[in-house]
Amino acid sequence: MTTGTPFRGLSAFPLTPADEHGRVDTETLARLVERLCEAGVDSIGLLGSTGIYAYLSREERRRAVEAASECGRGRVPLVVGVGTLRTDHAMDLARDAEAAGADALLMAPVSYTPLTQDEAYEQYHAVTGASGLPLCIYNNPGTTHFTFGIDLPARLSRLPTIRAVKMPLPAGGDFTGELASLRGRTQLAVGYSGDWGMADAMLAGADAFYSVLGGTLPRLVLTLVRAAQAGDAEEARRLDGVLQPLWDTFKTYGSLRVMYAILDVAGLGRAEPPRPILSLKAEARKQVLAAVEPLLASG
Amino acid sequence: MTTGTPFRGLSAFPLTPADEHGRVDTETLARLVERLCEAGVDSIGLLGSTGIYAYLSREERRRAVEAASECGRGRVPLVVGVGTLRTDHAMDLARDAEAAGADALLMAPVSYTPLTQDEAYEQYHAVTGASGLPLCIYNNPGTTHFTFGIDLPARLSRLPTIRAVKMPLPAGGDFTGELASLRGRTQLAVGYSGDWGMADAMLAGADAFYSVLGGTLPRLVLTLVRAAQAGDAEEARRLDGVLQPLWDTFKTYGSLRVMYAILDVAGLGRAEPPRPILSLKAEARKQVLAAVEPLLASG
Repeated sequence: MTTGTPFRGLSAFPLTPADEHGRVDTETLARLVERLCEAGVDSIGLLGSTGIYAYLSREERRRAVEAASECGRGRVPLVVGVGTLRTDHAMDLARDAEAAGADALLMAPVSYTPLTQDEAYEQYHAVTGASGLPLCIYNNPGTTHFTFGIDLPARLSRLPTIRAVKMPLPAGGDFTGELASLRGRTQLAVGYSGDWGMADAMLAGADAFYSVLGGTLPRLVLTLVRAAQAGDAEEARRLDGVLQPLWDTFKTYGSLRVMYAILDVAGLGRAEPPRPILSLKAEARKQVLAAVEPLLASG
Repeated sequence: MTTGTPFRGLSAFPLTPADEHGRVDTETLARLVERLCEAGVDSIGLLGSTGIYAYLSREERRRAVEAASECGRGRVPLVVGVGTLRTDHAMDLARDAEAAGADALLMAPVSYTPLTQDEAYEQYHAVTGASGLPLCIYNNPGTTHFTFGIDLPARLSRLPTIRAVKMPLPAGGDFTGELASLRGRTQLAVGYSGDWGMADAMLAGADAFYSVLGGTLPRLVLTLVRAAQAGDAEEARRLDGVLQPLWDTFKTYGSLRVMYAILDVAGLGRAEPPRPILSLKAEARKQVLAAVEPLLASG
């Protein structure tokens, strides 16, 4: 167990490099985690959507947590994604993550048959019974297609180990209003994801940012987050501007596909996304390359 | 291998009864399949969404196919759902289904990270390379959240084993226009699902109806489908009217939850949906009971 505040500041989400059969390359993963520890991120978000948790078996997810924990333990809090379709499996994954050295859990209401609010609540309730680790609600409608009703975060925040929520960017961009509303109804630490909203979210006073790019190029992202945390809007917005061409590729191709291309370009390792997800084609890679090359020295 | 036309007429989708750990109750499943064979449905849609394919392991999916095949072989064509997140796993499931006695495959572009049109195409392409069984495209945006672009069914229909498409009900209810459009662009047999659209779809000349209720109460549903196939609009619409209270519960609670309640009420077996999906509460069960009791004698 690592002391620290897993749900404050920059939570960096690395890829989980794996072979075509879904076997995790723990060596490359440990190298990515080491890089995050050295950069001084506030937490590591292992096995998030960027960490392809949905595509890995229970055994491989455990191997990934063990590898990351071995490298990061005592240095940076490790937040581990335990979402999956079945409640019993999510409970198993939570126990596995705790046993393998996780400091906190992150869980989305993954679904195939669309879930009711009660069903999602009971899924969280069961998982908080399986592990006492602090848990962050992963509100990610872009992948789960589950919509949190206005009451659900408040109900969930009364479960003693649920401490945080990771939100998508607000549709109208009104971080201030949403933060006030969530803080008025819950005790949860409120963070956001969707990297192109990083500067705005942190300048509006979000507790945390859950960053995809930060999982691979942590130094640059940390500079932006620290500037925003210090209230230096000018510097935060300047860096956001520098990153704009890269955010454009995230929006066009999906951040996951872009990150696999960056991993290669940055010389950090080679891995393919899990099929059916395909690597970017030559034209798209060129665009990513042009956007990321100027950033690599400061990444 | 059973001769017949798996993608014409009534394809009946039974539940896959399983215990709380996802172990399939093959005895109850075989009883449901036997009931479908006796009723004379045109095909059995095993491991569809109603057959909770997304919640079962590879091993249990194989056990389900074996049990159904043992009971139904030589009598009714068996269409088996092989959708899953990873391409390699979908290929394994297709090979397993063929080896265990399936006559045809059904596959939805299941996703977590939203898929591009090319990625979905390549997933189908890979699976048609793993098994030569005829395959039905499962277009089910309510669960997969994947939207088929206008060109994708046409591209897929050029793959030699892809023979059919299972469509959701058209948003505006224009079956005739959609059927003409799909038939103009593809050679696929076109069927629909969403039981409350059954009479309209079949009266409009759809090749098949993929029915949830038909998987448990096949006789009544078959009477409706046969009336529509014979052009007897009056009788088809009369039966649709009889079923209206039940369709209302499908829309309110989701057909899957309703079917678990019906299984019990009809005395066909007892099973719970896979958690996080919850059984209906007392008030909802009462409504289902009231809707289904008048139908049980003719089911």
